[in-house]
Amino acid sequence: MFERLCIIGIGLIGGSIAKAARAEGLCKQVVALGREKNLPNMQRALELGVIDAFYTDAARAMAGSDCVIICTPVGSIQAIFEQLKPHWNPQTLYSDAGSTKASVIDAARAVFGEVPGNFVPAHPIAGAERSGVEAAKVDLYRNRRLIITPLAGTDSQAVDKLGEFWRRIGSSVSLMTVEHHDTVLAATSHLPHLLAFALVGLLGRKDEQREIFKYAAGGFKDFSRIASSDPTMWQDICLANKQEIIPLMQQFQAELKRIEQLLQNDDAAALFDTFSYAKQARQRFLETFDDPS
Amino acid sequence: MFERLCIIGIGLIGGSIAKAARAEGLCKQVVALGREKNLPNMQRALELGVIDAFYTDAARAMAGSDCVIICTPVGSIQAIFEQLKPHWNPQTLYSDAGSTKASVIDAARAVFGEVPGNFVPAHPIAGAERSGVEAAKVDLYRNRRLIITPLAGTDSQAVDKLGEFWRRIGSSVSLMTVEHHDTVLAATSHLPHLLAFALVGLLGRKDEQREIFKYAAGGFKDFSRIASSDPTMWQDICLANKQEIIPLMQQFQAELKRIEQLLQNDDAAALFDTFSYAKQARQRFLETFDDPS
Repeated sequence: MFERLCIIGIGLIGGSIAKAARAEGLCKQVVALGREKNLPNMQRALELGVIDAFYTDAARAMAGSDCVIICTPVGSIQAIFEQLKPHWNPQTLYSDAGSTKASVIDAARAVFGEVPGNFVPAHPIAGAERSGVEAAKVDLYRNRRLIITPLAGTDSQAVDKLGEFWRRIGSSVSLMTVEHHDTVLAATSHLPHLLAFALVGLLGRKDEQREIFKYAAGGFKDFSRIASSDPTMWQDICLANKQEIIPLMQQFQAELKRIEQLLQNDDAAALFDTFSYAKQARQRFLETFDDPS
Repeated sequence: MFERLCIIGIGLIGGSIAKAARAEGLCKQVVALGREKNLPNMQRALELGVIDAFYTDAARAMAGSDCVIICTPVGSIQAIFEQLKPHWNPQTLYSDAGSTKASVIDAARAVFGEVPGNFVPAHPIAGAERSGVEAAKVDLYRNRRLIITPLAGTDSQAVDKLGEFWRRIGSSVSLMTVEHHDTVLAATSHLPHLLAFALVGLLGRKDEQREIFKYAAGGFKDFSRIASSDPTMWQDICLANKQEIIPLMQQFQAELKRIEQLLQNDDAAALFDTFSYAKQARQRFLETFDDPS
């Protein structure tokens, strides 16, 4: 599909795209662009055979790259756009893998005035609590969802081509508006991560005074897994999507307050209903999750 | 160790004790005691070979049983004590598997005046979101913790014997006070379950209006697993331990409010610190969890 794929930010997300694209024969060459401080990571990516070359100079990285995917934490995407602007090529397909979409669109508008038609905003719904290129997996996106959030001015051929790229690395591709994406992800991903960080932090401070982790069960291990996610990535996501996240946090606090009141009132029947509804809802989620169609 | 083990409440927890005790040769016979409405479940346990016989009559179940373990939801334990009282045998070892301990002690006091010395309150830290005897596993307690919360009047030989029983089915046995147990479990188990029920409930209601579960990632699957737990069991646990759970819910809400304020203020550095601390705390938890010594 492409002569040369350029990944900006060759960590778990970018490295997994590189591995999958190569495995499926979707590009002849994969290169990475990064900053000075990313040199050791890019060097490691080269040693692992994830990429064929790497650059810190945007001009050299862009020359000959007909597909460029930005895989850095969302807080740095505006700086990347600034870096790419002098070399922007109307024939190249540009995309990203950011977990929030309005912030990426805003960053593009800030840099380019208008979002370029050959930039296709996208988000693969696949993460892991590990990070770095060593954690990259060829099948990270297999049977996962890829969401594209095109704008009115986005080139439809570019959208189709990006969709085909992701389908060929195993993902199920959905199109939705930027707003819908950010609302849905705030609920299913951003809020749960904040809850996990908040809980594990609270318990961690208690554990420093009196051992409690020792007596946690396996359920807590699963529940707290996402608290091991990359702090920089999540700081960026939370700030980038705070307009959606804050109201949800408030709704969640209201729900906790309601349950607290049920406990105060010994309202066993209402607790049972609350827990039963959640159990059924999770069953519905599992049926949806296991069938990404 | 025992001639006849009697399990009251032959579900996941009781069934797994029965299977493990039998596999390790810790008793010659296993029987179950239950109510009329438990007949189909006890019948199934018999068919599966988990028990040798079952009764709805306490006198017949107790005759010849030298070890009795109560494995019903904690809300029903007082009724069980009432049922056992006329047949209470000073030579028999009685215990339970309740997830809260103060409530069980209170129930014993209400029925017996003083907690019998041959009743040893215990709690295996092993659960699963599945329930029922069909879900019982011979190795559910292997490499798990068993907490015994003896009182001043608890017979120390009975404590030793129960400890040996659990060690022989693979658990690491700890002794602690009732209060410490209930504080620790509120933090590591009860609060996380409430958060999972609250979140999945909130998202479930949103999902009814607009599909969102479809776009959740694998992290949410793990995070929400405990929301599939048995509603009756959890209604009982939450009410039985509400004195410990309510203050924790309030602390958690305060922590959420603090994070919400960091988002409002765009305080990236403080968010980073919050998330980093949690990530490190979870690493400490994993190191503790993987080594139950």
